[in-house]
Amino acid sequence: MTGRLIGVGVGPGDPELMTLKAVRAVGEAAVIAYFAKAGNGSNARQIATAYLNPGAVELPLLYPVTTEIAKDDPAYAASIAAFFDAAAASIAGRLDAGLTVAVLSEGDPFFYGSYMHLHVRLSPNYPTEVIAGVTSLSGCWSAAGVPIAQGDDILTILPGTLAEDELRRRLAGTDAAVVIKLGRNLGKVRRALIDSGRLGNAIYVERGTMPDGVVMPLATKRDDSAPYFAVVLLPGFEGRP
Amino acid sequence: MTGRLIGVGVGPGDPELMTLKAVRAVGEAAVIAYFAKAGNGSNARQIATAYLNPGAVELPLLYPVTTEIAKDDPAYAASIAAFFDAAAASIAGRLDAGLTVAVLSEGDPFFYGSYMHLHVRLSPNYPTEVIAGVTSLSGCWSAAGVPIAQGDDILTILPGTLAEDELRRRLAGTDAAVVIKLGRNLGKVRRALIDSGRLGNAIYVERGTMPDGVVMPLATKRDDSAPYFAVVLLPGFEGRP
Repeated sequence: MTGRLIGVGVGPGDPELMTLKAVRAVGEAAVIAYFAKAGNGSNARQIATAYLNPGAVELPLLYPVTTEIAKDDPAYAASIAAFFDAAAASIAGRLDAGLTVAVLSEGDPFFYGSYMHLHVRLSPNYPTEVIAGVTSLSGCWSAAGVPIAQGDDILTILPGTLAEDELRRRLAGTDAAVVIKLGRNLGKVRRALIDSGRLGNAIYVERGTMPDGVVMPLATKRDDSAPYFAVVLLPGFEGRP
Repeated sequence: MTGRLIGVGVGPGDPELMTLKAVRAVGEAAVIAYFAKAGNGSNARQIATAYLNPGAVELPLLYPVTTEIAKDDPAYAASIAAFFDAAAASIAGRLDAGLTVAVLSEGDPFFYGSYMHLHVRLSPNYPTEVIAGVTSLSGCWSAAGVPIAQGDDILTILPGTLAEDELRRRLAGTDAAVVIKLGRNLGKVRRALIDSGRLGNAIYVERGTMPDGVVMPLATKRDDSAPYFAVVLLPGFEGRP
């Protein structure tokens, strides 16, 4: 009898936005695994702290330091793949020993989460469950009071890493959008919003689900600096009854 | 002192996918409001049943019967708008009396939910909070075991009501997609997936978060009948490490 793998979405940050199912899973699991950068804490673990099974063994999965390799270098992908292989093997060892392993995942595990790299490696061989979570985007638009999409709206999630002309084209052609991964891309995203005629409705949100969060019209933000996890919300919801 | 309005996301269906915050809100509210069709129960109320404040007053908001009006007739929008106005006025009466009103919302209140129609009418005048929930889409892709998007994927939410050529063009031009509102649109959606070369990866999900849910490659589904709330998942997550 092997143990069970559970991908646990712990939500966007407020521990109260964990689901009952996530709370139960992290309270029962024998092993609690999470991704982290060496020297940094894990946000997901921080969110779930109060609910972790006190008898559980913790299994931090430390990302390799890849800053010396360019992201488009094949060696980068190889290094990341080797890391996920090793992380999966480490979890497989616990599953083989009959232990249930909960992998903590900020937001929702299958929505831009790292858990999926373990899932594709392990779910063919072990009983697996994924517990959906509140995404960081739902956390942001709820905290900001911005209804994002309704009715027959097309909603597009766009990484700020896209080229400026592609951002412009896609922003012009959607009802609603969320631009993620802002960081150093904010200036480019702003130009694409101006050129697509969409700046007027764009809302800038930083640390959206935190007590010190920032919500403002992007048009009134004076600089183009932003943390990586800031987002721009472009609500649909036009022509509403 | 007026009462507080709370838009409460109760998640996709499994009561255990309610957040701790939602459970607390519906356990404390003096008034529990929810949209419903006359003669039908409310899914949102059904999900939250076990956690409702036993002393709360329930306030069902019954959609008008509009089947005799075509959806593109201005009378349709006027009828719906009048209904939302009346629902908001009814809630405002309770808020003016100092009562906290929780409006139950399936999934996430600001993600294709009806709550937003009350929010825009009431939040300018009353203290308001929105509790993010797990969307029905997160529920579907988690239950189906389908990672939907990662890294720099563009994810597009497309209503099946779009014209076939627009569906084809948008499916061809996105990394990941979810097609919602299938129902009688399934045949058209299937043709658009074939013509955009994307049928091979398309997963059909029906009652995704229910015990009797259906998950299958769309290519192996033999007919083009589907419930309105069935979805097609087109995962991104290509070229993963």
